[in-house]
Amino acid sequence: MSDLAADAGLRAFNHVFDEAIALQAAPGQPGVYKGTPSQAYWNMVGPFGGTTAATALQAVLRHPDLLGEPLSLTVNYAAALEAGDYEVTARPVRTNRSTQHWTVMLTQADAEGQPAVVMTATLVTAARRATWSQNDRPLPAVPGPQEAERTPLYKGVEWINRYEMRPVHGHMPAVMDDSGDHSLTQLWLRDSPPRPLDFPALAAMADAFYPRVWLRRARRVPAGTVSFTVYFHAGSAELAECGDGYLLGQAEAQAFRNGFFDQSALLWSEAGVLMASTHQIVYYKE
Amino acid sequence: MSDLAADAGLRAFNHVFDEAIALQAAPGQPGVYKGTPSQAYWNMVGPFGGTTAATALQAVLRHPDLLGEPLSLTVNYAAALEAGDYEVTARPVRTNRSTQHWTVMLTQADAEGQPAVVMTATLVTAARRATWSQNDRPLPAVPGPQEAERTPLYKGVEWINRYEMRPVHGHMPAVMDDSGDHSLTQLWLRDSPPRPLDFPALAAMADAFYPRVWLRRARRVPAGTVSFTVYFHAGSAELAECGDGYLLGQAEAQAFRNGFFDQSALLWSEAGVLMASTHQIVYYKE
Repeated sequence: MSDLAADAGLRAFNHVFDEAIALQAAPGQPGVYKGTPSQAYWNMVGPFGGTTAATALQAVLRHPDLLGEPLSLTVNYAAALEAGDYEVTARPVRTNRSTQHWTVMLTQADAEGQPAVVMTATLVTAARRATWSQNDRPLPAVPGPQEAERTPLYKGVEWINRYEMRPVHGHMPAVMDDSGDHSLTQLWLRDSPPRPLDFPALAAMADAFYPRVWLRRARRVPAGTVSFTVYFHAGSAELAECGDGYLLGQAEAQAFRNGFFDQSALLWSEAGVLMASTHQIVYYKE
Repeated sequence: MSDLAADAGLRAFNHVFDEAIALQAAPGQPGVYKGTPSQAYWNMVGPFGGTTAATALQAVLRHPDLLGEPLSLTVNYAAALEAGDYEVTARPVRTNRSTQHWTVMLTQADAEGQPAVVMTATLVTAARRATWSQNDRPLPAVPGPQEAERTPLYKGVEWINRYEMRPVHGHMPAVMDDSGDHSLTQLWLRDSPPRPLDFPALAAMADAFYPRVWLRRARRVPAGTVSFTVYFHAGSAELAECGDGYLLGQAEAQAFRNGFFDQSALLWSEAGVLMASTHQIVYYKE
């Protein structure tokens, strides 16, 4: 697909998420794109990290040499994206019979106008074949999305309003009184307004959990993801089956140690298909 | 520390693991090193992936601009390393007040003598400060290392003999009869001969579990790690406390789907300190 055709395809859809991860191909430079972070997905400092991860993935998906579908994605957040143009470069560094290895880098001009690295990423795409398969993490027994109350719209952290979130366990503590005793959250979520699930949206949703340290401590401290990995168990067929339905997300921390904690999460379709497993290491203060 | 001093430090120790990950600095090119995979850690095709991951980490640890200690490491195995020289390049792409972001690439000459990418990696190093800390994954209640039988030496897969492995749960199935019903392994392990634990050794041990698909199916099929991530919860102090003692490793798969499964694992010291959490996505056939 040419870049013009890809651009036309994006514009035809015109969902706010597509606008947030839209990339403009640099003429004559395959894999080099320009973009601008979206105010619609603004977080406290810089845009929601999920859209930045989705942008890295999008740069690969738009590359003319792409083979296969996303298998794994690791994104490292080196600095907060600022509200100006960025450049993202995706490079296929090794193509095998059934896997393709990618490096991605996102830069933004610093105070002197020099490109500074804001994000690095690596991806593997793969051509899958039908094999013996087994899901050892079935959908937890939880109330359905319509039985769970939607979190109210949130002023000041805009990206949260781009998702319909219906927590069933591990809500954000109403009172931050240091009384926390676990870090497990389960919630139904989908784009708001609804949008058919694709790989970039799934990658973004894998980062949609509020910092586990707030729940574990019932205390709000500064926190931000440092490195984020998504393993895609879903292929195109499983994404299509989801349509614009909900995903159940389940996230839990394992260890908090001297300024950094890890989080492991799973995302299932309403039909119970495990779509992705995802992990991150997160900075926290105090 | 100069490269000469670092080389001297390595040689003074002279353990087979240090020899396996030894790097020779390219004069005048900071972050560029040459190395050779070790026959002592040979796997079926190419060397043990754990030593390759440790080599990526070592290239960063040897870099003159290094700040902080390893926090997260992701390694993507693009091709099997062959039994000849390789070049590894570590680049600090962003240095912040408390984190430093690195990209690493390992190349080996292809049939035409051109450098071909064999591994890509990203790392984050960090300066930690003492904070509120909490371990939500305590050491499982298992028999101690001296109560668990050591697996016998193994002909044909040499790297396994470089570890003292004492499984307490989820041994390699004695008969491959398709009777598997879980993928959980717990085992004590340390270098053989014993060696004081450091970051490269911890990274390698995080990859020391045999493929989960063999246990889950009780069937041996071709399998190999595609992407591997380690989150280091331990700092230098916790490593020093381990000395050359055992780690308890616990690994389990979550989902097997059309040629790829994920594995999540934890590693504790004998004293019960959670040293690392680690994840990988693994190719399997059939």
